[in-house]
Amino acid sequence: MPRYRLDLEYDGAPYAGWQRQVDLPTVQQAVETAIFRFSGETVSIRGAGRTDTGVHARAQVAHVDLEKDWPDDTVRDALNAHLQQAREHVAVLAATQVDASFDARFSALGRHYLYRIYNRRSPLALDKGKFWWVPRPLDEEAMHEAAQLLLGRHDFTTFRSTQCQASSPVRTLDRLDVTRLGDIIEIRASARAFLHNQVRSMVGSLKRVGDGAWSSHDLKTALEAADRAACGQVAPPEGLYLIGVDYPVENRP
Amino acid sequence: MPRYRLDLEYDGAPYAGWQRQVDLPTVQQAVETAIFRFSGETVSIRGAGRTDTGVHARAQVAHVDLEKDWPDDTVRDALNAHLQQAREHVAVLAATQVDASFDARFSALGRHYLYRIYNRRSPLALDKGKFWWVPRPLDEEAMHEAAQLLLGRHDFTTFRSTQCQASSPVRTLDRLDVTRLGDIIEIRASARAFLHNQVRSMVGSLKRVGDGAWSSHDLKTALEAADRAACGQVAPPEGLYLIGVDYPVENRP
Repeated sequence: MPRYRLDLEYDGAPYAGWQRQVDLPTVQQAVETAIFRFSGETVSIRGAGRTDTGVHARAQVAHVDLEKDWPDDTVRDALNAHLQQAREHVAVLAATQVDASFDARFSALGRHYLYRIYNRRSPLALDKGKFWWVPRPLDEEAMHEAAQLLLGRHDFTTFRSTQCQASSPVRTLDRLDVTRLGDIIEIRASARAFLHNQVRSMVGSLKRVGDGAWSSHDLKTALEAADRAACGQVAPPEGLYLIGVDYPVENRP
Repeated sequence: MPRYRLDLEYDGAPYAGWQRQVDLPTVQQAVETAIFRFSGETVSIRGAGRTDTGVHARAQVAHVDLEKDWPDDTVRDALNAHLQQAREHVAVLAATQVDASFDARFSALGRHYLYRIYNRRSPLALDKGKFWWVPRPLDEEAMHEAAQLLLGRHDFTTFRSTQCQASSPVRTLDRLDVTRLGDIIEIRASARAFLHNQVRSMVGSLKRVGDGAWSSHDLKTALEAADRAACGQVAPPEGLYLIGVDYPVENRP
């Protein structure tokens, strides 16, 4: 059975996250339904990042085993046709036959997220649902400086949902950069893996640093508390994008 | 009566264009209703560009006369509060008291539009409604080269809606630049004034050049025909943005 890697883009707004649920629309279900309509196979696909309700993806990666050996472009175009017909907000950017050892989730060496804040007084009209709107001015330099305190290997219990099912709260954060261009603040986070709600929890606390409610010392204290109650607000999902997943060279298409 | 300049952003999708109509939601009506809820005044506002159904604006400019002398920020924040409450897709970026000689439409010296094409095989998921999706590869260099033939003073009858009410089909096009960044093609058009549907008509014809159906000579022939029937397809409204309006120095806030 040939294995296909699927590179996916989606608008998270209409979905209860990536992972299949019984009664709610999810991205996984939308793609699995399109596969069924294409090949008649009932499959279970695995994604690199189990994005939450409302979280977007520019570059989610999943894999699926199909019975027949289809050309890559046929898989991509057919799934897109079925996704469009079902009015789903999901697009297959690429379908690529890969080695059977490739696993979208377990082969992943790194995950990259982008969080976008629109920092202006006026509400959003054109970009509603695609940014966190923060009307109060934020100091992005203070945010960036504080963010560097979170880099490295830590117990991230403070920045982890109480629903998180990971066996350990220890993760290694490789990058947490805060930059501004005009009214737009971008936060880029990279790690081998993240805890549930980790990026949004870190961003919510950084926002407190940005508006002056917290010093960078407060952020460090919150991290060291290793206590969920020490977290600032959790940033809303509409600003978060899964933008990339890294794989070993032998697994690259 | 103090006059206010309003800088507006809107998502064109839910509106039958800028201009007030009897039975359809329009941007002008949304703003006029917000003004009524704020000050109790029934006003008629004038905009710099009468954008069509579905066309977006990053920087539309309008003006309105109010009875009372409100601080600028009060006008902006109050109108935004009423627009938000009415779930309109319009935001006031700035309200600025200006001289009574300022007229958003008649003082304008230049108008700038951006047209965005997403040129990739896969349908759009995250950016649906914000670009013209063109799956077939376009040659943006050929488009840019051909676009330069449209610069200057011409009879633009070919690129003018049959509904256009302007007294003359002659306009002077100052800029028509086509650039690409990855899968995104941007077309920037500037002129003192445009005819009805002019930008979308030019873009639709440039797309024909981009996909090889037309040579740049064909585009020149279409212009010189001064005949609406010679126009290529009219590009859809969702890719078009009014991004700026120029005023004389004495009219700048």
